[in-house]
Amino acid sequence: MDSYKIAFDINGNDNGIFAAIQASVEFAQKNPHFNIILIGPQSQIQDLITEKYSTFPQNISIIDNPNIASNPDNIRASLHEDTSMNQAIELVKNQQADAVLSSGNSGLYLATSTFKLKRLPNISRAAFMPIIPTIIGRKFLLLDVGANIDSKSDFLVEWAKIANVFAKVILNTQKPNIALINIGTEDSKGTEVVREAHQILKNDKSLNYIGFREPRDILNYVCDVAVIDGYGGNLVLKSLEGAILSFKKLLKEKIMMTPTRKLGFLLAKNAFRDVAETLDYRNVGAAWVIGVNGVAIKSHGSSDSKAYLGALNQIKIALENNILAKVKKAIENE
Amino acid sequence: MDSYKIAFDINGNDNGIFAAIQASVEFAQKNPHFNIILIGPQSQIQDLITEKYSTFPQNISIIDNPNIASNPDNIRASLHEDTSMNQAIELVKNQQADAVLSSGNSGLYLATSTFKLKRLPNISRAAFMPIIPTIIGRKFLLLDVGANIDSKSDFLVEWAKIANVFAKVILNTQKPNIALINIGTEDSKGTEVVREAHQILKNDKSLNYIGFREPRDILNYVCDVAVIDGYGGNLVLKSLEGAILSFKKLLKEKIMMTPTRKLGFLLAKNAFRDVAETLDYRNVGAAWVIGVNGVAIKSHGSSDSKAYLGALNQIKIALENNILAKVKKAIENE
Repeated sequence: MDSYKIAFDINGNDNGIFAAIQASVEFAQKNPHFNIILIGPQSQIQDLITEKYSTFPQNISIIDNPNIASNPDNIRASLHEDTSMNQAIELVKNQQADAVLSSGNSGLYLATSTFKLKRLPNISRAAFMPIIPTIIGRKFLLLDVGANIDSKSDFLVEWAKIANVFAKVILNTQKPNIALINIGTEDSKGTEVVREAHQILKNDKSLNYIGFREPRDILNYVCDVAVIDGYGGNLVLKSLEGAILSFKKLLKEKIMMTPTRKLGFLLAKNAFRDVAETLDYRNVGAAWVIGVNGVAIKSHGSSDSKAYLGALNQIKIALENNILAKVKKAIENE
Repeated sequence: MDSYKIAFDINGNDNGIFAAIQASVEFAQKNPHFNIILIGPQSQIQDLITEKYSTFPQNISIIDNPNIASNPDNIRASLHEDTSMNQAIELVKNQQADAVLSSGNSGLYLATSTFKLKRLPNISRAAFMPIIPTIIGRKFLLLDVGANIDSKSDFLVEWAKIANVFAKVILNTQKPNIALINIGTEDSKGTEVVREAHQILKNDKSLNYIGFREPRDILNYVCDVAVIDGYGGNLVLKSLEGAILSFKKLLKEKIMMTPTRKLGFLLAKNAFRDVAETLDYRNVGAAWVIGVNGVAIKSHGSSDSKAYLGALNQIKIALENNILAKVKKAIENE
């Protein structure tokens, strides 16, 4: 069996470094052919390990780097600082690691991955692509969710091709349904950018393009790949997440109002548990950075160990299926 | 007490004309100083009335017009057809009615209102503005939700001024909190359009502008007026609605799976009822057409009588508070 190395920048989580360690230990124990390189504050990592674990997996190593960017908004300066993020990405660049995972600043991670790993041939822009759960259990890829404010129709088409490969591998679908997310389903609807992309994709025989879909139905499962400009995609993602969080909050408040309702909740509790599992936000916490010459994923800044484990497992599937080579082949066939 | 006339185009509802009649009767009985002019298929209306009501309010009249646009996408041709929508809007134009309500084709209604009523001075574009409920019970105005695909920063600023007046009147708030909905809260986030509007609104002392807000928190109540370009606003609205519908559907499925869960649901049923009342979509079914020289509102194409009643009650508040004059004053003070 091939072996793989994952560079894991563990600084930059709002809740400290333990969730990353916990997920790494669990993942490393289950996957002896993977090596995890933790990049973070070495002595703190070692103290935590000594405190919490009797044995420590041999396939985890540590690189001491406690530094995060002094000002993540200053990308030019940040690129040259000795940070754990830069070091993690450089491990991939220098082929000392096969993939990189970070929960640091999103904008900086995207810019640094693009700058250090370079864009893939024929790809104009990198994009963020999370996996989103639907109510029927199937998941879909949504992109771009905010890497790009101004998108062109070509970007959407290029992203569709890359996401098509990811959907085959990560979602295990033979012929992924690709949709453009739009404010209506008729050809005339939406921005010029999305209408142009629609015309190009309709004529692309390499993709199973199914046309425009509206965000209203998206969580019921309408497609395997949902392509949209970064501005729209970010609004959609945050609206979907926000609406569900608000609804749950309100329902909880109304349930706690009387003892009878509380009893009813206890009896129906497993239904709520099932719903939470189906729509687990921790599936959404990680977003692929696509379009760069490397396997890179971004975890949410407040990821817990389950969220990190989800990201590590996605990386595993991606590497074991040689995803980068497949992506390159798909976009070189142009 | 002043008396008012509402022109009600009752064609164009997917479920027929009865919901409109039902809402009109209920509204007319409660509000003798309002006259409702139903524009629709007269004999069918009269048959329904005879069948369902022993007495018919004297403050409802009927204009016979069973016609809808032959091709609503052809706006130029539709403007000259003898349709109930055109007739309803013309009643307002000719000061034979004070407000117009329709659930016909959205794009056509917007174009026709703009063409026949004309835009208000200093206003570049008309916009759609629904009232959205939040989980704390307060409501907010969201605009534009799709009247304009390409928006400029000036449009957002103009809409903010109009919506500020509507929020005072319709939401009964003294100093409405105005926000721009954006993909982040820092000054540097978002499109050039929204960043420019942000700078203009920050310096506008006539408005209580509170800055950028993200759609993630919007249903928890963050502002009274949420301004966004029409493309983004439509995506946000459909994502919010869709996420809640999907979540409810999934929860229902999971509850129906076992007898114990069903029993629990029965005990907690009132909590669900409370949630449904707080987030009643029928408050969202109607959207104001703002920026035109007239009081115009659009109801959803599948409105039931409660949704229509909501729209009629909004019109009532608007007219009794002389909203159009207040809007004109606010935008003339430039």
